[in-house]
Amino acid sequence: MIHEQLLRDCHVLGRFECCAVLLNRNAAIPWFILVPDTSLEDLLDLEPDTLATVTGECQRISRFLKQERGYAKLNFAGLGNVVPQMHLHVIARADGDACWPKPVWGHLTEEQAYDPATLAEWQGRLVADYGLHPNADLECSAD
Amino acid sequence: MIHEQLLRDCHVLGRFECCAVLLNRNAAIPWFILVPDTSLEDLLDLEPDTLATVTGECQRISRFLKQERGYAKLNFAGLGNVVPQMHLHVIARADGDACWPKPVWGHLTEEQAYDPATLAEWQGRLVADYGLHPNADLECSAD
Repeated sequence: MIHEQLLRDCHVLGRFECCAVLLNRNAAIPWFILVPDTSLEDLLDLEPDTLATVTGECQRISRFLKQERGYAKLNFAGLGNVVPQMHLHVIARADGDACWPKPVWGHLTEEQAYDPATLAEWQGRLVADYGLHPNADLECSAD
Repeated sequence: MIHEQLLRDCHVLGRFECCAVLLNRNAAIPWFILVPDTSLEDLLDLEPDTLATVTGECQRISRFLKQERGYAKLNFAGLGNVVPQMHLHVIARADGDACWPKPVWGHLTEEQAYDPATLAEWQGRLVADYGLHPNADLECSAD
């Protein structure tokens, strides 16, 4: 089960082996959120094997953002001060973006929505080249 | 060489195998910064073996903060929008701390200094139980 706040904030694109792959609905900055299958709350509490799997899945999103979307810079974080369920932020950043050089949290005020074609295109590319198991309905919760 | 901004902001406690171990001078919140030996800028660009080593060293700091200092919650992040040199934040958080539940960046306004005895105690414990190679002078730069 994915926390309801994450489901309100994000499109659910699908799953990798260990993580659900969410995309923040705010298209002002490409902002993925990966939700690992674990009851632990802090990334650094994971056992080394699981930590490697989870960070490896985050690397797939990083490669997508850098290689497919052309971003040179990424922010990566596990915070969880508000939503306790472990979730990892993989965020594409660029000089001149909507809150550069500040971190997104509490500083991203611009809001845009993804159009359905972009969502389908990103999901399709992640399925084709990055091993995503797609969620059938981009507006529905993952299991 | 550690970026001058990090040296201004932090005490240099020493090194693990791959990372220099810094502690933000602001004692309001226990905030470690690990600086890996790499010219890459984003954590998720590291090769899997190096990524595992670096996150493993961050886990040592996490265990110190949780087991020795009694914190239940950690924030972990690699941002680097201002200081490009890769550096990883390992931050102890607690309900009611100086900027809870906000992230520290841009929200931590309270300032405190570490007293030298606390710095020496923390460094000593990290050496004794967590494999830190100590920096002789807590005010000097690491090599």
